[in-house]
Amino acid sequence: MSNYWIGVDLGGTKILAGLFDEQFRILGRSKKTVDVSGGPEGVFRQIDEAVQQLLAEAGLERSAVRGMGMGIPGQVDPRTGQVRYAPNLEWRNLELSRVTPPTWTWPIHFENDVRMGTYGEYTHGAAKGARHVLGVFVGTGVGGGIIINGELYSGFNFNAGEIGHVIIHWRRGTPLESIAGRRHQMKRAKKMLDDAPKRVRRAWKNLDPSQMRSSRFAELFYQDDPIVARLVDDAARALGAVIGSMVNFLNPEVIVVGGGLAGALGDAFLDRIWEIAQRYVLPGASDGVRYVSAALKDDSGIYGCAAYARTRTNGK
Amino acid sequence: MSNYWIGVDLGGTKILAGLFDEQFRILGRSKKTVDVSGGPEGVFRQIDEAVQQLLAEAGLERSAVRGMGMGIPGQVDPRTGQVRYAPNLEWRNLELSRVTPPTWTWPIHFENDVRMGTYGEYTHGAAKGARHVLGVFVGTGVGGGIIINGELYSGFNFNAGEIGHVIIHWRRGTPLESIAGRRHQMKRAKKMLDDAPKRVRRAWKNLDPSQMRSSRFAELFYQDDPIVARLVDDAARALGAVIGSMVNFLNPEVIVVGGGLAGALGDAFLDRIWEIAQRYVLPGASDGVRYVSAALKDDSGIYGCAAYARTRTNGK
Repeated sequence: MSNYWIGVDLGGTKILAGLFDEQFRILGRSKKTVDVSGGPEGVFRQIDEAVQQLLAEAGLERSAVRGMGMGIPGQVDPRTGQVRYAPNLEWRNLELSRVTPPTWTWPIHFENDVRMGTYGEYTHGAAKGARHVLGVFVGTGVGGGIIINGELYSGFNFNAGEIGHVIIHWRRGTPLESIAGRRHQMKRAKKMLDDAPKRVRRAWKNLDPSQMRSSRFAELFYQDDPIVARLVDDAARALGAVIGSMVNFLNPEVIVVGGGLAGALGDAFLDRIWEIAQRYVLPGASDGVRYVSAALKDDSGIYGCAAYARTRTNGK
Repeated sequence: MSNYWIGVDLGGTKILAGLFDEQFRILGRSKKTVDVSGGPEGVFRQIDEAVQQLLAEAGLERSAVRGMGMGIPGQVDPRTGQVRYAPNLEWRNLELSRVTPPTWTWPIHFENDVRMGTYGEYTHGAAKGARHVLGVFVGTGVGGGIIINGELYSGFNFNAGEIGHVIIHWRRGTPLESIAGRRHQMKRAKKMLDDAPKRVRRAWKNLDPSQMRSSRFAELFYQDDPIVARLVDDAARALGAVIGSMVNFLNPEVIVVGGGLAGALGDAFLDRIWEIAQRYVLPGASDGVRYVSAALKDDSGIYGCAAYARTRTNGK
């Protein structure tokens, strides 16, 4: 019986693939670092290895696969499977169907990776049951996804959900990501360190901000490191302003916040964001609105990809 | 034959009603100032007079009316016809079907007034033919509307499109409306005048900012009045930042800008907004996106209301 679904979450540095059965139980996961130097064909060869491994471990033939969804970090047209631009992969104007392995005989559906993550939280995670969802993912950068009337919304140029590029200072043109994303935070940390008292600099002596992981960053946050405290509070203020704005403007039923940095910082961070957002919300606009943290963690993407493939394959 | 449609645009200070035939030609308009002191029944009596006048002038019986759409300045649930809150009318938790005249035997569909205006521009105006539309209306305040996949999107709490309440300064919490809306601009004008050189104050000697019309404001703009020049450029910068953000985040196909102030200021203002917006747009996000001024002017609302009634009555 071909009732199995595969979700592939392709990032700039790693692949996570998952295999799901008919009841959408997860049968296996395969995680690999990805080498993008061999171009799209090379990347798809690596994905194929992950897929073969998943099938072998579950004792399934290729013919058992009913469909596959794949999340790509960039602008993707889900109707044609064309990548307009994926900066981390250095792919531009690429017809994905031309580079998928010939052994993949099942239907394949492509979408942006963060939108797929939002879709996963909508179908199997924290936003289940809602009709209108805003997903906000805070990690190296800040991305997002929009679900309207139960459907993933891609936008005219397949950019919809790019919440990291909402401007939070109208005169300076500061985008949200430059305050709330980890990459920019680490740049700010370096500058702040140069100007910090000796006691603070000492705590950072053996730390390289550009190499710091979210988990270490979160430790410093809970140790009340003054630099990290400042960066995290700024991030919460910036995210709060944008999320409050979106409660007014997009007016979703559920706002789900995920991503590596948000996950590592935990509830204190999420609560602070929502506290700030409430200051900006119009009377009545947030009544009954659920504000939740992503439930599927690293698996949002693979659930979303597999569920998206099922929805599309079954005709939507 | 009952193939006529009525659109009613109810504002805080005026009613504009329009009668449309089967081909959606406009047969007549009726404009009245509205007295809200008699409560909803009083307001609906005034609307009924406008409707009777329209029908009489067109030589039509009430039975010729196939359906009616009405735009309400506030939070409206279009499925139940309940007003949650309409501040200018001082209506709260009002079942509209309880106060509509018994002689209105046709189907009536209610929505927010600015969303109806956006819908009018989508069906009969500058955004015709697009699937995803953002409407931005700049007048006393700043409002908006969202169309996704050809359908008006109301939001979970019927706030969707409230673009005037997008935050443009993450630390101060400044909403767009407080820089780009006329009411707030006039407050700023008063403050700026107090601090202005004598020559500038002289030009404003007989002008009361709180009473100034958009047309007079536009005249001063084209006379290079330094206070108005500053206010208009700030408005364009704030609108540009938010519209650029929305090209990234909502990624519509058409952005239509209307409203009394935008209409009075004309192309110089609209061009400046778009010039600013382009600075913030992600690569590719605005490719092929149309940025246009509202084509129906004061009639956006009545076209939208009548067209919305037709769409809903015919089963959507």
